[in-house]
Amino acid sequence: MTKQFKFTLHKKDGAARRGTVHTAHGDIRTPAFMPVGTVGTVKGLYMDQVKGTGADIILGNTYHLMLRPGAEQVAALGGLHKFTGWQGPILTDSGGFQIMSLSKIRKIKEAGATFSSHIDGRKYELSPERAMEIQRLLGSDIQMQLDQCIQFPHTEKEAEKAMQLSLRWAERSRKAFQSVSQPGHGNFGIVQGGTDERMRLASAEGLKQIGFEGYAIGGLAVGEGQKLMLSTLDFTTPALPVDRPRYLMGVGTPDDILESVARGVDMFDCVMPTRSGRHGQAFTRFGKINLRNAKHADDPRPLDAEHPCPALSQYSRAYLHHLIRSGELLGMMLLSWANIAYYQSLMQGMRDAIDASKFEEFRAATHEQWKMGDVAT
Amino acid sequence: MTKQFKFTLHKKDGAARRGTVHTAHGDIRTPAFMPVGTVGTVKGLYMDQVKGTGADIILGNTYHLMLRPGAEQVAALGGLHKFTGWQGPILTDSGGFQIMSLSKIRKIKEAGATFSSHIDGRKYELSPERAMEIQRLLGSDIQMQLDQCIQFPHTEKEAEKAMQLSLRWAERSRKAFQSVSQPGHGNFGIVQGGTDERMRLASAEGLKQIGFEGYAIGGLAVGEGQKLMLSTLDFTTPALPVDRPRYLMGVGTPDDILESVARGVDMFDCVMPTRSGRHGQAFTRFGKINLRNAKHADDPRPLDAEHPCPALSQYSRAYLHHLIRSGELLGMMLLSWANIAYYQSLMQGMRDAIDASKFEEFRAATHEQWKMGDVAT
Repeated sequence: MTKQFKFTLHKKDGAARRGTVHTAHGDIRTPAFMPVGTVGTVKGLYMDQVKGTGADIILGNTYHLMLRPGAEQVAALGGLHKFTGWQGPILTDSGGFQIMSLSKIRKIKEAGATFSSHIDGRKYELSPERAMEIQRLLGSDIQMQLDQCIQFPHTEKEAEKAMQLSLRWAERSRKAFQSVSQPGHGNFGIVQGGTDERMRLASAEGLKQIGFEGYAIGGLAVGEGQKLMLSTLDFTTPALPVDRPRYLMGVGTPDDILESVARGVDMFDCVMPTRSGRHGQAFTRFGKINLRNAKHADDPRPLDAEHPCPALSQYSRAYLHHLIRSGELLGMMLLSWANIAYYQSLMQGMRDAIDASKFEEFRAATHEQWKMGDVAT
Repeated sequence: MTKQFKFTLHKKDGAARRGTVHTAHGDIRTPAFMPVGTVGTVKGLYMDQVKGTGADIILGNTYHLMLRPGAEQVAALGGLHKFTGWQGPILTDSGGFQIMSLSKIRKIKEAGATFSSHIDGRKYELSPERAMEIQRLLGSDIQMQLDQCIQFPHTEKEAEKAMQLSLRWAERSRKAFQSVSQPGHGNFGIVQGGTDERMRLASAEGLKQIGFEGYAIGGLAVGEGQKLMLSTLDFTTPALPVDRPRYLMGVGTPDDILESVARGVDMFDCVMPTRSGRHGQAFTRFGKINLRNAKHADDPRPLDAEHPCPALSQYSRAYLHHLIRSGELLGMMLLSWANIAYYQSLMQGMRDAIDASKFEEFRAATHEQWKMGDVAT
């Protein structure tokens, strides 16, 4: 039996949605947080740890993987699943965001993007068709269209131009995706248009006309602030098809995620749990805890005694503090693991709450507990 | 029943010895390799991975731990076992070596050493008595006397002076160790004297007069080269009591260890497997493999398909190459784990060979296999 890519919406509670995305490599329970495995590794974690936290899917970066080791190389080694050892679903972005954020020299034309590698300055071209080809070579379960991302702040004209180009690239991406049969694999379009309602709605409409297995919201969490991000979601998610998964790209803090689920978003990815972990910052039920802080030096308590993840329940704050202060790998490993585990338990909490029609209670209680913060724990 | 610290010599095969060291926190099968947990973590490994490789004992550094987090702090948190989560035996060195190698400003007097922390320049004093007190506070199962280490090369006069001072410190260390009852804990003296036979024998004789639970050989692998190191062992190990464990400090490569076991050494420690691992160097049955090398980029084979450690058998060389080239934590984690695992299986191989009276065959076959190296695998 060939697996079919599809989305099942199980339940709504307010705007919050509980669903399942079915892919070639397994199911994704939504709302879902996707740990970021930039170059084929979720930084500092073993893949079985990632799985053990409850993650159903991880994300890989087309930009990074096309530069090193290269899409054809990964394909020759059996694809990204085999290469990395991650057996569940993988989503790859299209490279658009990193071309904007990482490459110092870049040119955007109708045909596609030309840019210089941030590693060695070598020149690359990335068209919508090549972006899809790379993701097919990697074997991604969810393949994103190529889009043009722009820096924040920007003018309305810049946003309009980028949104329109992204729409034309969406159409070409879609054609390229459909030109090869990939049962169980899906292709998402990306809504652009800054924080402007008219543009976001035009972008969503254009994408719906093309038709995708899922819809992402790009160009947020780039400096506009949480308030503007959420108000943009307020008018963007209602414009997206009910029967398709919605993915808010590159977001965010636990609070960003909770508030976005409340606005009908199903999927998220962010480097924050691992990046912050490497720098000594823990996300927990009790809010953020900065393990560099001297007050943890003599504290024998774990971050969260009741959490099933050993990184949260089996290591004292004193030990974590010592490891982080000493620049030890294990400190980065443990806090990255703890943060991914907390993010996943937050997602599980939201899924359970929606199932039980208690999302609003969960949302309020979670905010309340975060406020206790580092002080009360 | 109170556990008693003792050494059981099960078997000799040539000069190679098979034994067990019994300690408060469990048994150590010898010949033994002790992974180095400098500041309370074997760099890049979880403690259950360390245990899983077959390590019975790890080493902690008095110098590092007294600076950060501090001996009294570790004691208040329940000791080094509880602090780190390592439940097996722990050996701590005395700080002598790091005072020589790490501290830029140091003064050695009869009373003890005065030195500045390499972290913040703060001034510390370390007498033989304080070195033992720190190790007692840490809760080490094997506590080393304070000794004076000197740089290589050195004059005969410098070596003689340091050896004599180390002997006087040995006596004071022993008194301090015996002043407090610590059932199941042992105290090792350290033979010094450079590569000079007369001095080494005088040092060994002096230490035997004092009487220790074990005897270490210090001041080797400091730049004298393998040949001089082994010839020094040739006359030093026969001067040590047969019924006590012998520990060659800070050694070494797999080859150093194999050749030292052949000369009657029982215990080893070295940062090499983890340090080299972090830099992309693997130690395997087939010799050294430098994963940075471009030839591994497309190689789907693991480092050693038949090894029980997942780091050796479950990850392709291509993936390891990619991780190391990308500077990823997981690359450092996997190669550190692989190297500790290989070291432990080498020790197990030696123990089995001695048990079977086939040490010479094992030694020859191991050398032969190493020669195959990276090329033939």
